[in-house]
Amino acid sequence: MQAINLADKLSTFDEVYVPKVVAELNGQLVKIAKFHGTFPWHSHADEDEMFLVLEGRFDLEFRDRTVTVSKGEFCVVPRGVEHRPVAAEVASVMLFEPATVRNTGDVVNERTIEAEGLERL
Amino acid sequence: MQAINLADKLSTFDEVYVPKVVAELNGQLVKIAKFHGTFPWHSHADEDEMFLVLEGRFDLEFRDRTVTVSKGEFCVVPRGVEHRPVAAEVASVMLFEPATVRNTGDVVNERTIEAEGLERL
Repeated sequence: MQAINLADKLSTFDEVYVPKVVAELNGQLVKIAKFHGTFPWHSHADEDEMFLVLEGRFDLEFRDRTVTVSKGEFCVVPRGVEHRPVAAEVASVMLFEPATVRNTGDVVNERTIEAEGLERL
Repeated sequence: MQAINLADKLSTFDEVYVPKVVAELNGQLVKIAKFHGTFPWHSHADEDEMFLVLEGRFDLEFRDRTVTVSKGEFCVVPRGVEHRPVAAEVASVMLFEPATVRNTGDVVNERTIEAEGLERL
C-alpha cells in the first residue's frame, strides 16, 4: 500500500487519448489520460464509465447535449449511451471503469486500445 | 448526464466519517466524506477500497506502517487488510468501493453505517 500522486503520474507521458492504468480494484480499473482534440463517437454496451477531471476541462458530447466537465468535476456515462470527448486544450482526466472496457467501445479504429494492451504506470 | 462538482457537494455537509454517495456505476459507489480524528480499526473481507484525497491529508494506518495521503493522491487498501484513517485536521476524501461495503467492515460500532443507510447527495 502506498500513496499514488496523480500529478507525478501525469507528468510521465504526453500522449493524448492513451489511458494508463494507475490502480485496479474490485475488477475495476482506475486510469488516467490526457484528452486533446476530438475522440470518435462510441458507446460501451455493458459498462458505465466515469470521467473525473484533474486538470483543465473538456466537453463530453452526447447526441442530444454537451456536458462541459471542468477540474474538480466528474460525469458518469451510463452503459449504452453514445458519447465522445472533445477537448479544445489538453485536459487531464481520471477514468473509473470495469477492467473489460475497450476505450472505443463498440467501434474499432486508430484510437482503439484493447484492455490487455493498457500500460500500467 | 451532468457534471457533478465535488467542492459543491462537499460544501453541503460538515459531519465527519459519514460517507455520502455521489454516483453509482458498475455496482460500485463513489462516495465523498470528511475525515477528522481517528476511525476504528477494521477490514473488508471481500472489497478493495480506494481513498482519493480532494482536500487536506490524512494518515492511513496499517498494522505495520502508516501511509500519509495528501490532496491529489490516492491509496488502495486491498480486501482483508486491517486499516484505519487518522486525520489530524479535516480532510475531504473520495471513496470508490463496491455498493456492498459497510464503512466499518468487520466491526460494528457507533461509527457504523450500513450500505442501505447511505445518504445520496
